[in-house]
Amino acid sequence: MGPVPGFFDLRQLAHAPARELHNGGWVEYAEKPSRAENISASLGELSGAKDFGLEPLLAVHDPAYIDFLRLAYTDWRASGREGDAIGYTWPIAHRRDLRLDRIDARLGRYSYDAATPIAEGTWDAAYWSAQTALTALAAIVDEGRRTSFALCRPPGHHAGRDYCGGYCYLNNAAIAARRAQQKGLRVAILDIDYHHGNGTQDIFLEDPDLLFVSIHADPVNDYPFFWGHADERGDGKGEGKTINLPLPRGTDMSRYREALDMALQAVGAHRPDLLVLSFGADTFEDDPISFFRLREGDYREIASRIAAIDLPTLIVMEGGYAIDALGANVSALLSGFESAAI
Amino acid sequence: MGPVPGFFDLRQLAHAPARELHNGGWVEYAEKPSRAENISASLGELSGAKDFGLEPLLAVHDPAYIDFLRLAYTDWRASGREGDAIGYTWPIAHRRDLRLDRIDARLGRYSYDAATPIAEGTWDAAYWSAQTALTALAAIVDEGRRTSFALCRPPGHHAGRDYCGGYCYLNNAAIAARRAQQKGLRVAILDIDYHHGNGTQDIFLEDPDLLFVSIHADPVNDYPFFWGHADERGDGKGEGKTINLPLPRGTDMSRYREALDMALQAVGAHRPDLLVLSFGADTFEDDPISFFRLREGDYREIASRIAAIDLPTLIVMEGGYAIDALGANVSALLSGFESAAI
Repeated sequence: MGPVPGFFDLRQLAHAPARELHNGGWVEYAEKPSRAENISASLGELSGAKDFGLEPLLAVHDPAYIDFLRLAYTDWRASGREGDAIGYTWPIAHRRDLRLDRIDARLGRYSYDAATPIAEGTWDAAYWSAQTALTALAAIVDEGRRTSFALCRPPGHHAGRDYCGGYCYLNNAAIAARRAQQKGLRVAILDIDYHHGNGTQDIFLEDPDLLFVSIHADPVNDYPFFWGHADERGDGKGEGKTINLPLPRGTDMSRYREALDMALQAVGAHRPDLLVLSFGADTFEDDPISFFRLREGDYREIASRIAAIDLPTLIVMEGGYAIDALGANVSALLSGFESAAI
Repeated sequence: MGPVPGFFDLRQLAHAPARELHNGGWVEYAEKPSRAENISASLGELSGAKDFGLEPLLAVHDPAYIDFLRLAYTDWRASGREGDAIGYTWPIAHRRDLRLDRIDARLGRYSYDAATPIAEGTWDAAYWSAQTALTALAAIVDEGRRTSFALCRPPGHHAGRDYCGGYCYLNNAAIAARRAQQKGLRVAILDIDYHHGNGTQDIFLEDPDLLFVSIHADPVNDYPFFWGHADERGDGKGEGKTINLPLPRGTDMSRYREALDMALQAVGAHRPDLLVLSFGADTFEDDPISFFRLREGDYREIASRIAAIDLPTLIVMEGGYAIDALGANVSALLSGFESAAI
């Protein structure tokens, strides 16, 4: 297989919140534009995003949520506030659709943490991040590429149908997966970010046709805490189509490999036409906010194992906060796909 | 009627968080110990609280939540954190019982905002605030007083079965009401704080025997936003036993009086043996975080109208943040009960 085509749009850099609430105080926002810049510099030429419009976003997200996201920063500033928009109270019980006039109320309604501010460029960046995922999907579906890489940023896997959280606003992987479903493809999503992809899980929780498998840090200790436990297996007709493989802090490649093989077995058994890989490089040993022990070379092996199940694969970038190592880790992953003898 | 006996325990002052997240930034914590001191100084001699133990608290709150509340500050400091314990992420979807090892996770599991920190003295103060409510209840139920006043602080009406929020940790009014129910009394709760008493509503949402009526600022604009809308009328067997009367910002006594009369009509129709009055003085025209226009003398009239329906009445203090005026406003309310010709 030749080089994996990569996609990225410079408008994704417009999103740059100043700070997030973490462990009781403000800290510098970890999901920086320089993450994408480091990856982009390492990969060489990347293609820009085509514009597929709002329709594929609305196939996943609530229209009211999209309206909120587009207008939240403007509304925030219009109400006389400084800095980035951030909520302070959340509907943990009886959450439902409501007319809410105050921007603080809408921030609570459509988010679940105080770590995901909406800044001036958030909507534009999130929009183009989603378009990048769709463009990378088109390279497979319309142009017959075997594998493609969407340098999505902001990431997406924590965003649900009607909420942002965990640095995520639009669920890029889910938007691409739903689009593929609409084109008649049977899809599996494998999420190998350090953190559980709760938004993706929630979006497809009752979908019997899509398999969601996630390998992540045990939420007993790690974000997003409330989701990603092993007993979450899908609801209703989707029961059994969600598989969570939480692993302890300190996990290295020997333990990770076992979980990956289990995950890939499940993916194979689902018999998908397309694999969407939510890839986070925050499983890296030097990641500043995460606690697995994978090394650069491990990403190459992970890719080889995934490539071995022989599926068209859309790779969607999620997290990873060891910024200086991001490009090398992503390159290692892509090299594993590129050298696969398929 | 003679003077209304008042109850207060100095241990309630132990709770003093430094700050809260509000409208996007840290602000000084509004629910200060001096609130209770101002009221206490104005009322003269108050009796201390008797200790009824944990049992009446556990008749309202989840045991796991009580454990969390008792240990949260210790756990927070043991994990190396500075300052007061505060969450940063909340389970807005699929909230359920989970083993969660990290204190941040438990803070999210058992709260709903970033405005209700757990400080060193929080558990003690909340415990004695609840005991104060129970002691004031005993003055009515065991000693035959017609009316009594519990100077509860921290307040309680935003706290639910298993969550804190809105400066509230233990739901003092609900704890007293449930205790009265266990003694065979039929109870109505009238909540006249500026903010909707979402915790109380939630606790009794399906209870067909308890009427909860609340007059408050329309949550479309005011905290707690997600609850207190007019279409919330109770669930299941409790349907119709929750009545919400939201009013617009700027409401003065003429408009408030209409809502109060509607509320009192509903209370009378319920034929309770006891009225629990959740009283917030944040409906006062000079309250710094609220927007009604009641004046000191209006509290006397409100009390007279409530006294006119001729029910034993337990008054439980909730909010009110115009600290220098709190004592005068509470005194005005109590004088309205004291002068009632019953």
